Amino acid sequence: MVIVMSPKATQSDIDKVVERVKKNGLKVHLSTGEECTIVGVIGDKKKIASLEMNMMEGVEKTLRVTEKYKLVSRNFQAEDTVVDVGGEKIGGKHFAVMAGPCAVENIEQLREAAFAVKKAGARFLRGGAFKPRTSPYDFQGLAEEGLKLLRSVADEAGLKVVTEIVNHDDIDLIGKYADVFQVGARNMQNFELLKALGKADKPVMLKRGLSATISEWLNAAEYVMSGGNNNVILCERGIRTYETFTRNTLDLSAVAAVKELSHLPIVVDPSHGTGRWQMVRPMARASVAAGADGLIIEVHPHPEVALSDGDQSLTPKNFEILMAEVSEFAKFMGKEL
Amino acid sequence: MVIVMSPKATQSDIDKVVERVKKNGLKVHLSTGEECTIVGVIGDKKKIASLEMNMMEGVEKTLRVTEKYKLVSRNFQAEDTVVDVGGEKIGGKHFAVMAGPCAVENIEQLREAAFAVKKAGARFLRGGAFKPRTSPYDFQGLAEEGLKLLRSVADEAGLKVVTEIVNHDDIDLIGKYADVFQVGARNMQNFELLKALGKADKPVMLKRGLSATISEWLNAAEYVMSGGNNNVILCERGIRTYETFTRNTLDLSAVAAVKELSHLPIVVDPSHGTGRWQMVRPMARASVAAGADGLIIEVHPHPEVALSDGDQSLTPKNFEILMAEVSEFAKFMGKEL
Amino acid sequence: MVIVMSPKATQSDIDKVVERVKKNGLKVHLSTGEECTIVGVIGDKKKIASLEMNMMEGVEKTLRVTEKYKLVSRNFQAEDTVVDVGGEKIGGKHFAVMAGPCAVENIEQLREAAFAVKKAGARFLRGGAFKPRTSPYDFQGLAEEGLKLLRSVADEAGLKVVTEIVNHDDIDLIGKYADVFQVGARNMQNFELLKALGKADKPVMLKRGLSATISEWLNAAEYVMSGGNNNVILCERGIRTYETFTRNTLDLSAVAAVKELSHLPIVVDPSHGTGRWQMVRPMARASVAAGADGLIIEVHPHPEVALSDGDQSLTPKNFEILMAEVSEFAKFMGKEL
Amino acid sequence: MVIVMSPKATQSDIDKVVERVKKNGLKVHLSTGEECTIVGVIGDKKKIASLEMNMMEGVEKTLRVTEKYKLVSRNFQAEDTVVDVGGEKIGGKHFAVMAGPCAVENIEQLREAAFAVKKAGARFLRGGAFKPRTSPYDFQGLAEEGLKLLRSVADEAGLKVVTEIVNHDDIDLIGKYADVFQVGARNMQNFELLKALGKADKPVMLKRGLSATISEWLNAAEYVMSGGNNNVILCERGIRTYETFTRNTLDLSAVAAVKELSHLPIVVDPSHGTGRWQMVRPMARASVAAGADGLIIEVHPHPEVALSDGDQSLTPKNFEILMAEVSEFAKFMGKEL
Repeated sequence: MVIVMSPKATQSDIDKVVERVKKNGLKVHLSTGEECTIVGVIGDKKKIASLEMNMMEGVEKTLRVTEKYKLVSRNFQAEDTVVDVGGEKIGGKHFAVMAGPCAVENIEQLREAAFAVKKAGARFLRGGAFKPRTSPYDFQGLAEEGLKLLRSVADEAGLKVVTEIVNHDDIDLIGKYADVFQVGARNMQNFELLKALGKADKPVMLKRGLSATISEWLNAAEYVMSGGNNNVILCERGIRTYETFTRNTLDLSAVAAVKELSHLPIVVDPSHGTGRWQMVRPMARASVAAGADGLIIEVHPHPEVALSDGDQSLTPKNFEILMAEVSEFAKFMGKEL
Repeated sequence: MVIVMSPKATQSDIDKVVERVKKNGLKVHLSTGEECTIVGVIGDKKKIASLEMNMMEGVEKTLRVTEKYKLVSRNFQAEDTVVDVGGEKIGGKHFAVMAGPCAVENIEQLREAAFAVKKAGARFLRGGAFKPRTSPYDFQGLAEEGLKLLRSVADEAGLKVVTEIVNHDDIDLIGKYADVFQVGARNMQNFELLKALGKADKPVMLKRGLSATISEWLNAAEYVMSGGNNNVILCERGIRTYETFTRNTLDLSAVAAVKELSHLPIVVDPSHGTGRWQMVRPMARASVAAGADGLIIEVHPHPEVALSDGDQSLTPKNFEILMAEVSEFAKFMGKEL
Repeated sequence: MVIVMSPKATQSDIDKVVERVKKNGLKVHLSTGEECTIVGVIGDKKKIASLEMNMMEGVEKTLRVTEKYKLVSRNFQAEDTVVDVGGEKIGGKHFAVMAGPCAVENIEQLREAAFAVKKAGARFLRGGAFKPRTSPYDFQGLAEEGLKLLRSVADEAGLKVVTEIVNHDDIDLIGKYADVFQVGARNMQNFELLKALGKADKPVMLKRGLSATISEWLNAAEYVMSGGNNNVILCERGIRTYETFTRNTLDLSAVAAVKELSHLPIVVDPSHGTGRWQMVRPMARASVAAGADGLIIEVHPHPEVALSDGDQSLTPKNFEILMAEVSEFAKFMGKEL
Repeated sequence: MVIVMSPKATQSDIDKVVERVKKNGLKVHLSTGEECTIVGVIGDKKKIASLEMNMMEGVEKTLRVTEKYKLVSRNFQAEDTVVDVGGEKIGGKHFAVMAGPCAVENIEQLREAAFAVKKAGARFLRGGAFKPRTSPYDFQGLAEEGLKLLRSVADEAGLKVVTEIVNHDDIDLIGKYADVFQVGARNMQNFELLKALGKADKPVMLKRGLSATISEWLNAAEYVMSGGNNNVILCERGIRTYETFTRNTLDLSAVAAVKELSHLPIVVDPSHGTGRWQMVRPMARASVAAGADGLIIEVHPHPEVALSDGDQSLTPKNFEILMAEVSEFAKFMGKEL
């Protein structure tokens, strides 16, 4: 931490700041500039993390120099994490595509979707049984009935299951049917859920919050890893900005940023990221080119009758075209689909 | 809902759109303009709420005309809701101030804070026993021990207790000690928690999410009310924007907006809203002037040793000055403190 | 400036950084922490301002410690600037209200508006003769004809004239008729215009850009002051955020921030800040309570026929009510209207 | 335009709304729903564009159905515009790379950069002679001296010149030396400049404003086209969001959006879009994959001594690697470099 003193700070103000830092078991390093004095704080990262100094007389501002997360950091582990989901891998050289309907609606819809995405080359079936919806009057999902459908259809088609968890009490229930726990954007800082998933024995796909910084997102992943679960997959799904043409603003720079800051694999969700099915293909290609380790795509056999997110779902035919393009781009990036 | 057809839409495209709307049990109203045709959709609000049309051939965009929430709406109930917390009221003519430390740390700190805020005129003691923190390595709160301290100190000082709930499993536990359940910004769309609080028998103070629209916030309140709990207090606490000088951007227009759209009381949190103790007083005054029904303020007997949020906490002395100003402004606004 | 070295930086990386800083005529101060080395840069502010270090090997990030502006800073001048507009003052104890139509349309409209705002207590007539509009097909203003109307009507009513300048070639033309040059949000970083106004002999009201930080805004004011014109009035008019209920998000914290960082007077524009006439009154009150030095309000004798911004214009009657409230609040804040 | 009446609107309110619409020479279409009445407005686009209705009694909100721009629209011209810059083309099948230093500093720097980017395959030399800088104390460019250097070095290397214009008075001066006028983000809504460029006889590259919506950006392009200049190139350069890790948030969805809404070519600036040289390569690849028609990249022979933007400039060597990747991706997208 660096503490910037006001040009008007007195020597006594500086002395008190130094004293308070030392009391916290930390060391100081003073730089006296022409305009102001800067107090560098050195020592244990956790102690610094909990130090607050802005309320002290004469302090103009404090700047944090290091991030609070550790286990997720590329500095902590240089090589890429490869998450193994019962034999299907994500990360490093392994590119993974997860596809399927937004919500599980019935067996016909799910089977049709599952066989279509399998045929096109996806290895994971996505589908929601518990849906977090803005309004209490929207369709909330089929719950356990949906999980059962997911498992049986995925087994039949030869796919792994990725599904959302919204309640930490459901870990055992969902763990019985799913291969990957998905944490949605609205729950990225549901710390009770993250702590519980830290104890789970299956991988966690953590979506970025609606307006989470990359730093907050990595700290959320740290909650899961610090609980003992190292199999974390990050998922960029667009952030909230002033632009209204798209549902969210897909932040592909975050892919490059995560690759620099962390060893964890990152997949991109261009369906939620744009909210418009016409944009899913170009953004899927761009995701691969930016260095993503995978994609999660909404595919519905009949988008025009979907109970949710029909606007952003691809038909099986469009998904096939997408997969052909993505395969080419992934190959060029040195990844195996 | 209004469906705008593309200038290039064919008659067959329009026919299919009309057919699909009718199949959903809704009626259409066609307007044929010079450039394009507009399809108005009329009928049951819930049916319209779940209708998606953008994926259909020839549709340029759809515009939602009505909000999905109902019980929270000023159209549904014209007069202001007054929430009664064991005799202490919020809403209508009743202005309420909640104050205390960010986190409960120990009995000395809490007693000192409680008697100070009581003396200055606050009627509610705030303090966190369960703290949702960005990093797993930050102080997470004293849990039940903190709740016990809150209850006993509040009783001694003659104050009501407002405290945060982060886990729906804790409703009984927290309900034993607290008078108002606070839902934090990070949990505004933790729908499992909202549903559980809909069944609780104590008031809920619902903070606005970090980047929640006013509409999403009112829909979140609808989750609580549709569960049967009508005692909801809204709390504006700043939104996330590009500006970094303040911790958040306090959106006081939201106070005026909520007063127009809903009958629920709204309080403002200038401490989190600005993140700078020097700004708490001016923003508290501005909140009252904008029409707020109350304030929630962080007060710490010794901000420089606080375990969290020391930067934005007021000393008891500064809180006293704030209360003197707020009383004057509230009186002018026709409110009783 | 503080340069944070990566944990993986070598001694040679650090040496090269130090060497480059010294070559720029600056001094360094090294702090060697447990995880990384921090290089403090000390010396001439302007030299530091133009130093870039992120591209050097081993550098993790750089943090700027001081702002680049100087003349606008409270550190440079402690007492409030009071801008004198031909006898009418703004700043310090002097609260000023500017009111009138968005655009000058014709003499009847302008006279009606001018006499109404004068009667209610405003001392400045606002009105646009050159309108910067999003679309080339929108009404662009009456140009010099509008300026002439403004001057003659203002003289008749006993008001000062505030009007927008969008083109640096118009300084002489507008200067002939107006008392205050207004720079709109879209031109806040039109540096050619700012430089030209730095040479002008009349006060400048500088609106905050659509998504300008407070720091960028103060730097824009520095352009005017560094040209020799000290009579700068800042104007908060709302910033762009994700919220769509209001036209912009009025950032009243900026009032408190400007009061801390600068000696310049600041007025608030709740008409553009909200875009909804119903919200103008509460936000005007809140602006005064937050510490603003004035208000600029759109008033139109017949908003329903306005050529622009009718949605956010007050009728003369509503403006009168607003002025009554504002007077009370200003008095309480120790200001004279 | 669609006018949504409040559920509480009276018949008289509706009548007055209808009357006002008709008075403006427009037709209405009434839809009476269960909750509220919707008034569709039909007729001349420009008349509708200037209609404002929110201030009328009983009106809840108005929704705009059509965009105000016309000439830039894909509906107006279906085939891609190909801009021809003295034989070098941009748009359609033609992919263009513009590269060079942020600011022209001296002949050695510029020659070294020019020959390097030419060798790697770029066809345009970029470089600023007039620099819009946040602070008046930052380097402001070499002005005409810089233009002369640009022209002579570009001619020597066989490149076209792209350079920024910040002042409409400079059109003749810059036109003497440059092949493409660049309008920077801060001037996207400097309408005086846009109008002047509408009369110019050279192409205009219009950067997206810091927080401009896609709609505002296309309306700004309409200013140029409506003046008679059809050779407009759009440039996505990142938007302002809450994320601070990158300088801006590069919005690649905007590429797909522009391709859908307009026939104009679009290039991407990943240098300003990210502000970090390490991210330029991945974001350049992603831009091509998203469907961009070109790239503009900052290349400096010695970024560590650059007078501006050194942090985001590539070395010639890194630019060569970028070009190799971009060529492959462009080929795959069916474009010629």
